Amino acid sequence: MKVLVLGGDGFCGWPTTLHLSDKGYDVIVVDNLSRREIDLELEVESLTPIRPMGERIRTWKELTGKEIGFVNLDLAEEYERFLGLLRDERPDAIVHFGEQRAAPYSMRNAAAKRYTVDNNVRGTHNVLVAIVESGLDIALVHLGTMGVYGYGWSGSAPIPEGYLTVKVPTPDGEIEREILHPANPGSVYHMTKTLDQLLFAFYAKNDQLRITDLHQGIVWGTQTPQTALDERLINRFDYDGDYGTVLNRFLMQAAIGHPLTVHGTGGQTRAFIHIRDTVRCIQIALENPPDRGDQVSVFNQVTETYRVIELAELIAKETGVEIAHLPNPRREAVENDLNVSRERFIALGLDATTLTEGLLEEIRDVANKYSYRADTTKIIARSVWKQGMETSPDLVS
Amino acid sequence: MKVLVLGGDGFCGWPTTLHLSDKGYDVIVVDNLSRREIDLELEVESLTPIRPMGERIRTWKELTGKEIGFVNLDLAEEYERFLGLLRDERPDAIVHFGEQRAAPYSMRNAAAKRYTVDNNVRGTHNVLVAIVESGLDIALVHLGTMGVYGYGWSGSAPIPEGYLTVKVPTPDGEIEREILHPANPGSVYHMTKTLDQLLFAFYAKNDQLRITDLHQGIVWGTQTPQTALDERLINRFDYDGDYGTVLNRFLMQAAIGHPLTVHGTGGQTRAFIHIRDTVRCIQIALENPPDRGDQVSVFNQVTETYRVIELAELIAKETGVEIAHLPNPRREAVENDLNVSRERFIALGLDATTLTEGLLEEIRDVANKYSYRADTTKIIARSVWKQGMETSPDLVS
Repeated sequence: MKVLVLGGDGFCGWPTTLHLSDKGYDVIVVDNLSRREIDLELEVESLTPIRPMGERIRTWKELTGKEIGFVNLDLAEEYERFLGLLRDERPDAIVHFGEQRAAPYSMRNAAAKRYTVDNNVRGTHNVLVAIVESGLDIALVHLGTMGVYGYGWSGSAPIPEGYLTVKVPTPDGEIEREILHPANPGSVYHMTKTLDQLLFAFYAKNDQLRITDLHQGIVWGTQTPQTALDERLINRFDYDGDYGTVLNRFLMQAAIGHPLTVHGTGGQTRAFIHIRDTVRCIQIALENPPDRGDQVSVFNQVTETYRVIELAELIAKETGVEIAHLPNPRREAVENDLNVSRERFIALGLDATTLTEGLLEEIRDVANKYSYRADTTKIIARSVWKQGMETSPDLVS
Repeated sequence: MKVLVLGGDGFCGWPTTLHLSDKGYDVIVVDNLSRREIDLELEVESLTPIRPMGERIRTWKELTGKEIGFVNLDLAEEYERFLGLLRDERPDAIVHFGEQRAAPYSMRNAAAKRYTVDNNVRGTHNVLVAIVESGLDIALVHLGTMGVYGYGWSGSAPIPEGYLTVKVPTPDGEIEREILHPANPGSVYHMTKTLDQLLFAFYAKNDQLRITDLHQGIVWGTQTPQTALDERLINRFDYDGDYGTVLNRFLMQAAIGHPLTVHGTGGQTRAFIHIRDTVRCIQIALENPPDRGDQVSVFNQVTETYRVIELAELIAKETGVEIAHLPNPRREAVENDLNVSRERFIALGLDATTLTEGLLEEIRDVANKYSYRADTTKIIARSVWKQGMETSPDLVS
């Protein structure tokens, strides 16, 4: 089975590429290296010493004998090249990670807001149009986000896997309708994923494209069995204020003795998944595409939920580092509950890594090992959701 | 009150510009003349002999003494110039018609699909970001479409003005939630208006922008009291397969003795509004903006609903022209009911033109008068919703 991995150089894309190659898929990475360019813009680097794509692919070949293709291509700007690639390679499926993925970066300034919308919407729409124009029956697996649902909307009811059955009043009583769960994105980045949902719904309906949308929680961890084979295959680890996600940021802070930076009370509940499970979920999604004519197949790609303060306390207890409560640069509820349906992947065989299993290993093998590479001036989140909102000064000099 | 009219050279934009200028607003048109460029691409012209923007504005000044500004600017491509315009002019409000507006054109081919999404989403997002970045309190009035709701979704219940109260099941019973009416767009064009809704909801929530979204039915008619003052002020009238909307197309067909082209059975029910009422609705929306912090204010900008076949029969009876049932190039329900709430504009004073009042005048003063300009090879709709769908040959040579 031949698969294009769009965004295959990124944090989720690279380990997915290796996982699929390991499982016998014929993989071609399509990536314009935009994530590395944003590192240059932000003057920060992955905590882990990631290697250039060519070296990554050569190392994998050397260790396993398996070939991975690579095409440096901008999905938003190079439609005709992308269509040509589909026609030449005739892939069976596309895994689409090729979008700007950080909420704080998307709120950084007007240019970042515009880039996030232009890049994500145009790129995703180009993928859909190219599949239609190619005439090929290519299944699409897209990485969405739990953030499309917003937080706290449905009270005690679990957030369903994409679709919600509601009762609508009519003059004669009421009728039941299944709807896409109402969108309530918390940032421009999350908003682009809600736009993607409407693109997918239209192309599934009009052109019978086979589309899977994976609403993923916050990914933690760094390595998979494949990326851990050799240091030249190592996955990226973001710890900076824009791209560092909460749990990995805490792990790195613990490793260097930096206070754990909790925004507000830490009462925000979020969903989590280990990167090892992300790559398994992608494989499961590839193996279980919807049929032509089906609605978009939506999974909640989530294994656990925690309050942010619970995570901080867990790590503080393990490591002795203190907790710092900082002003929250986001506009969001101070506290929320989160109850997420996650039956679909479990029914299809996912055996999840729980947080308590993987945490210490992550601190030892990644955060501690590469802590010498950390720039402590990059840790505090500086992107604010509205002009004039307060952020913390650096806590460590 | 100073107002920018984005897309002020178009079919709705130009009569709105004159109406607002007539009512004492200080109006600046912002338009990149894209609609005229698409005429060149499609090798067709407005049935009415529209004049260049400069001549239009000079004529208005000559007749009324009123000044209208004009800035030739591409909203999707010239963000910085647009932001500079906001800073220089400090408008109180923006009326936004600046999007590609034809469903058949948006389905014409891959390039038109991509242009419609790229142009409409980027342009609208740029407007929102620029308002935020300007720091000015500029109210935005945007033209949406009834097509965001889809057709037939809620059975006998009237389509509400944007928001729907539904009951959501919970483990303990059910809770009520007000949601944006679920989107079910029938074309790439309509899809872009559903994307716009999510952009507006986010910027109303995050930045407290004051936004009004007008879900308009199919506009018919050509002239308003202002455009009828002088032939040099005449509004455009589209009759071709891509841009000609159903009722105006019938009027023009009746004028030249061409069979009335009904797609399928004509059982599709659609909502209509006369262009004279469009311009009044825009003024009402400008005079009644939401407060800062409110949700997006949504109106259904609709005065009547008819089945397509009823319109064809009405015009056939008045004019003696025959009806031709052609293959439907769209993917849509063969028949649908449509029950639309439209209380808000009526409560704010709209006194609507009904179809039976305006029809004969329209045939006499516009369709007959300019029928010599019609190109009969452009009448049949040729854009199909999926490759391989059938269209009719030309009916008149």
